Amino acid sequence: MHIRSEKLSLQLENPFKISYGATTTRQNALVHLSDGELTGVGEAAVVPYYGETPERVTTYFENLPSALAENVLLLEDALTQLPPTESSAARAAVDMALHDLWAKKLGQPLYRLWGLNPERCATSSYTVALADDEAAYRKLVANAQGFPVVKLKLGSGSLDTDLKFTQIAMTLLSDAQICVDANGGWSAPDALKIIPQLAEMRVLFVEQPVAKHDFAGWRMLRQQLPKNMPPLIADESVQGVESVIPLAGLVDGINIKLAKCGGLQPARQMIALARALGMQVMIGCMVESSVAISAAATLTPLADYADLDGNLLITNDPYRGARNVHGKMMLPILPGLGVERLVE
Amino acid sequence: MHIRSEKLSLQLENPFKISYGATTTRQNALVHLSDGELTGVGEAAVVPYYGETPERVTTYFENLPSALAENVLLLEDALTQLPPTESSAARAAVDMALHDLWAKKLGQPLYRLWGLNPERCATSSYTVALADDEAAYRKLVANAQGFPVVKLKLGSGSLDTDLKFTQIAMTLLSDAQICVDANGGWSAPDALKIIPQLAEMRVLFVEQPVAKHDFAGWRMLRQQLPKNMPPLIADESVQGVESVIPLAGLVDGINIKLAKCGGLQPARQMIALARALGMQVMIGCMVESSVAISAAATLTPLADYADLDGNLLITNDPYRGARNVHGKMMLPILPGLGVERLVE
Repeated sequence: MHIRSEKLSLQLENPFKISYGATTTRQNALVHLSDGELTGVGEAAVVPYYGETPERVTTYFENLPSALAENVLLLEDALTQLPPTESSAARAAVDMALHDLWAKKLGQPLYRLWGLNPERCATSSYTVALADDEAAYRKLVANAQGFPVVKLKLGSGSLDTDLKFTQIAMTLLSDAQICVDANGGWSAPDALKIIPQLAEMRVLFVEQPVAKHDFAGWRMLRQQLPKNMPPLIADESVQGVESVIPLAGLVDGINIKLAKCGGLQPARQMIALARALGMQVMIGCMVESSVAISAAATLTPLADYADLDGNLLITNDPYRGARNVHGKMMLPILPGLGVERLVE
Repeated sequence: MHIRSEKLSLQLENPFKISYGATTTRQNALVHLSDGELTGVGEAAVVPYYGETPERVTTYFENLPSALAENVLLLEDALTQLPPTESSAARAAVDMALHDLWAKKLGQPLYRLWGLNPERCATSSYTVALADDEAAYRKLVANAQGFPVVKLKLGSGSLDTDLKFTQIAMTLLSDAQICVDANGGWSAPDALKIIPQLAEMRVLFVEQPVAKHDFAGWRMLRQQLPKNMPPLIADESVQGVESVIPLAGLVDGINIKLAKCGGLQPARQMIALARALGMQVMIGCMVESSVAISAAATLTPLADYADLDGNLLITNDPYRGARNVHGKMMLPILPGLGVERLVE
């Protein structure tokens, strides 16, 4: 197995502002696994607020055992034998590359080997970041025109601003379903105040209202919110497979991201868990190229919601793969993840 | 899709006596699904003490929608759209046949489409039923000669007999690992007495010590048994996917049987759940032909234990498929489940 690591510097079209801060570039990394005949590719999203660094990711790639996937047809062996790492993004990249190579060896698109119907992909939301003022927000919202599901990043620091932004989006995008994501930016008491108002505005769901580790907050919401609220979806509170069961009874759904959970194999286990626990499933992403987005898109026939616009936010995606046509995800029919390199 | 139902009368080599009673034949049923080009086959084990009847099973087959699996490549759609039924065995048969046909369409053995290593199949235990007296028991035990893992059916009604039978097997089969299955034949207080004695005899695991619905019993065992007991595996207490989470913290493992849980799709979900809950996994069977045994065998690379001797107990298996060579499971390399009809 030949392993090649590649740095991937992604340029954001607009500075991306959420409750953590703002950013204009992202330093992701690709891994290419080749058995001499075919090559699989995977991507690690290096998200600083998840503690990832480009060095940690490429070190993981470069220290993979050379005997990795000697027989890539034994995919489960290769996945199970991956060296442990604290970098979920690095593991996710290798997991994607192994799935890509495995499905190419079998000559089939990955969704076919999972028996999935590519017509059933969940509709992807388009994300609207925070803005400094209403005028700037109107401009951001205008970019979402034509998308059937639009996700507003809230947690601006002011509930009034959050509500005002939501009202602007509801007005300008009256044909769209609007969902909101606080990225943990509310206290539980604030969430208790704002969620019923968002419910009246008929938001589709509320994502990560309280902070990542604020399980008492989740519990308070569950106990004190009135009935018939929009589903509460956990995102930052969800990491890998082990994070799902502790959320049982506290949240209505989980946002699964490959870079958080370690790849397609754990993601599919999490979907099985979520379904057994009666939870909804969202497939999300980071700022990523078409490599990671296409891998995540392959899971969307199993999901209720998708949020796979990470590659729409960048100007220098070196690949093409799954397409997001105004929210409708279209999976490529090529073998593997179905991605093709466009530029060197 | 052409659907054909077939009755399958299985003759047992020896009357099979467990804590429920004795039996000499079983009336299973096969379902054949054909898309005009290829055919998939599945089997329903009609186990009277699970409330199954041949009529209920064949009625399910005969009333399947003719549009079932119009495009069998969309396996997940076909499985999801199966009509609901109280007959898990009937659903399991159709699930097997769909997997068989799907994998044949893709020209691959099913284990390959799951990325599994056929060399990692869990060793199958050989089952020794109860006997009326010690002499008869010695004869039954002699048939287990050469198997590396032997499962003794206990719950004879007398703890002394159970211990005596175990001691006979330990002595006659000194090279084997011995595990025991009470089929729910003990009260919790009896189980509290006998399990530490079985632990001293170094049994590999204890299966279903208390009755199916005796959750208070499971809890009592968990709380009152000393540490370092053999793993306690639930069998009758496990049914489908929904039965796994209530057993969390109460049992060390679950015995998954296709006829109980409804087929390969729910079985794989249960494996994901069990692993997330830190449980061991056994793949078990009913009295079944090589059709159902081969389907179950495909799951054994994901399991800790296998108990797939159902086809070794019958004299008129019309198929060949996965082989159980003194406990070592060997998966066929033919596409699909890999089974071949031997007789009409």
